[in-house]
Amino acid sequence: MSKLDTGKYLDLFRSELYENVLPFWLDHSLDHECGGYFNCLDRDGSFYDTTKHMWLQCRQVWMLSRLYNTLEKRDSWIEAARCGVDFISKYGRDDNGRVYFSVSREGRPVFIQRKIFAECFYIMALDEFSRAVGQGELKEEALELFDKVLAWKDDPASLGRPVLEGQPAVSFLAVPMIILWVADQLAEGGENAPYTELMDESTAEMLLHARQDKKIVLENVAPDGSLLEGGPGRLINPGHAIEAGWFLLERAGKTGRDELSDTAISMIEWSLEKGWDPQHGGIFYFLDSEDAPPFQLEWSMKLWWPHCEALYALLLAWRKTGDQRFADWFEHVADYTLSRFRDPLHGEWFGYLDREGRPTHTLKGGAYKGCFHVPRALMMCIKLLEEIS
Amino acid sequence: MSKLDTGKYLDLFRSELYENVLPFWLDHSLDHECGGYFNCLDRDGSFYDTTKHMWLQCRQVWMLSRLYNTLEKRDSWIEAARCGVDFISKYGRDDNGRVYFSVSREGRPVFIQRKIFAECFYIMALDEFSRAVGQGELKEEALELFDKVLAWKDDPASLGRPVLEGQPAVSFLAVPMIILWVADQLAEGGENAPYTELMDESTAEMLLHARQDKKIVLENVAPDGSLLEGGPGRLINPGHAIEAGWFLLERAGKTGRDELSDTAISMIEWSLEKGWDPQHGGIFYFLDSEDAPPFQLEWSMKLWWPHCEALYALLLAWRKTGDQRFADWFEHVADYTLSRFRDPLHGEWFGYLDREGRPTHTLKGGAYKGCFHVPRALMMCIKLLEEIS
Repeated sequence: MSKLDTGKYLDLFRSELYENVLPFWLDHSLDHECGGYFNCLDRDGSFYDTTKHMWLQCRQVWMLSRLYNTLEKRDSWIEAARCGVDFISKYGRDDNGRVYFSVSREGRPVFIQRKIFAECFYIMALDEFSRAVGQGELKEEALELFDKVLAWKDDPASLGRPVLEGQPAVSFLAVPMIILWVADQLAEGGENAPYTELMDESTAEMLLHARQDKKIVLENVAPDGSLLEGGPGRLINPGHAIEAGWFLLERAGKTGRDELSDTAISMIEWSLEKGWDPQHGGIFYFLDSEDAPPFQLEWSMKLWWPHCEALYALLLAWRKTGDQRFADWFEHVADYTLSRFRDPLHGEWFGYLDREGRPTHTLKGGAYKGCFHVPRALMMCIKLLEEIS
Repeated sequence: MSKLDTGKYLDLFRSELYENVLPFWLDHSLDHECGGYFNCLDRDGSFYDTTKHMWLQCRQVWMLSRLYNTLEKRDSWIEAARCGVDFISKYGRDDNGRVYFSVSREGRPVFIQRKIFAECFYIMALDEFSRAVGQGELKEEALELFDKVLAWKDDPASLGRPVLEGQPAVSFLAVPMIILWVADQLAEGGENAPYTELMDESTAEMLLHARQDKKIVLENVAPDGSLLEGGPGRLINPGHAIEAGWFLLERAGKTGRDELSDTAISMIEWSLEKGWDPQHGGIFYFLDSEDAPPFQLEWSMKLWWPHCEALYALLLAWRKTGDQRFADWFEHVADYTLSRFRDPLHGEWFGYLDREGRPTHTLKGGAYKGCFHVPRALMMCIKLLEEIS
């Protein structure tokens, strides 16, 4: 195995998780009055909006429960998770069983997306929490909702999305990814073997996005894997592709598929090579595979979560291959990430940097950032470094 | 009247419109094979996506027809407008009469928004074109569609937008603005007096957004004008507020309301003072009135259109007041805008700059930028400078 100071990173990530990141969320996010979490938190932890975004409510429940189940049985973690689970169980779903995108501080519904992601995060939350406390009825609710999600995902009209005749059929990378993630979670307890076929299908669909010929991972392809025309067909989200890479690398480990592991590692490497800004460092948010102008205004920004994904993906690739170039990439990404994103003053990490690496927003939590990517990456890296050591 | 070299700007804007901007669109955007316009154009005019976004199709028809009706009767302008009007008439609307957001190159429907803006741009296009060529049935279609829009705008469910119980009732500045703009257009021909009451109502609703106490213009307020909680209630879009300012200043001129004119001028001035980046120049895209982190990732970018709006608004404010500070602001904004946005190499203007004023995108046309803001501002400034001279 090639060289990496694993002890150094184990110490670093442990102190980051325990002393800089978790205290921020535990001290500032819990709404002791109305339940759930304040997820729109400014630099110092004060809230600047009391809307409760369900992605973040659910992810925080999952995260705190996962820490409890994985690292240690801290009461403060599971009590904080309960504060969220009680809120989402009470206010999270509409009469059709769908999960809102956002609710008011008191839990009154504000917005619902025409997508399945809120539902998936809700399932993750219930399942991981139920595993911690043994509340079987939550697991049952999770399983029932997942059945619905599987029906909804292939029927846009059921989500309220009009189907228009000129819309090309698209495989969105995010969909098989989240289905694989949820199915893997639900199967993890051991008692749910029926998801094997679903996970194989999701894996196969994800692989359609990995283009060996061009050494890129595309966000959107046709359902048969052929290229789509126009901007959406050329869209690359390097951080998302790196996340897809580690999902598949873990899957390869669980199924013993070496060829899957090779592709997964390539996906991580291509995406870093294509996605790393040679001029200012950091991973671009979006790219166009032919270097046409991306539709996204924020394409050149550096977001915290692709860097979180890269840290774990690179460590996993290094453990699998022992190849020094992954250790080097890991150190390179860790240097950039820890020096640019973390906030030594108030804890947690900044979420949004401009291309040059300066924070554009002071927030620690918003509609899409919460108690999730940073602690998840730190927890997964810690577990992996412990195994390696 | 205070000092401004109007002759210099008249020459500058005429040559910009005739030599740098219009040739770009006339040379590159017309799809002679399928009709309509390529609106996703890269720096040199080549297309990078053939999707036809209806906002841009309609705005280009309006723009070219307006130039024909206002500046001179050039055949090439009205023929280019006809290329668009034939396309949108054939492919623009669904069975309920709603206007798509985007269609494929051949006109097959791709996406429809749950908003009324595409419909409004469609009405503008038909009305202005019919005025140029005397096709009365297009005017009839415009009037009929506007009646529908007025019903749809107050009934989100009719647009497919679920109404949830925790959603606060909101007055979005964009809605009374576009209603005023369309009503004014339809009334302009002279034969449509019935819109006076509607224009007064829209004006009154727009004025709810101007907050004398804080010297700001808010994007979203409650229907009674009170402040909304959270980020959306604090959102400022300075360029949009400046555009609202000149809409109201023109309205004040037409109705002889001096107090409206004073408020309109304040809206322009507040928005520039609050919205101009003291560090790098240029108008911010979004701000939070209490300096909390904006939800928009791109808040600190400099977009072409707020600068277009500011040029005309400042010229109008200067003509109305004769106050030197508007002449000075105008020159300041013109310097920034012409030196940063315009592309002397391939024509037209870049659309998107980073905070420091460097282009982030090479595109000249995209899903929201087309043959509209730049030529509209130049045309309106030219007309005004001609009147002043």
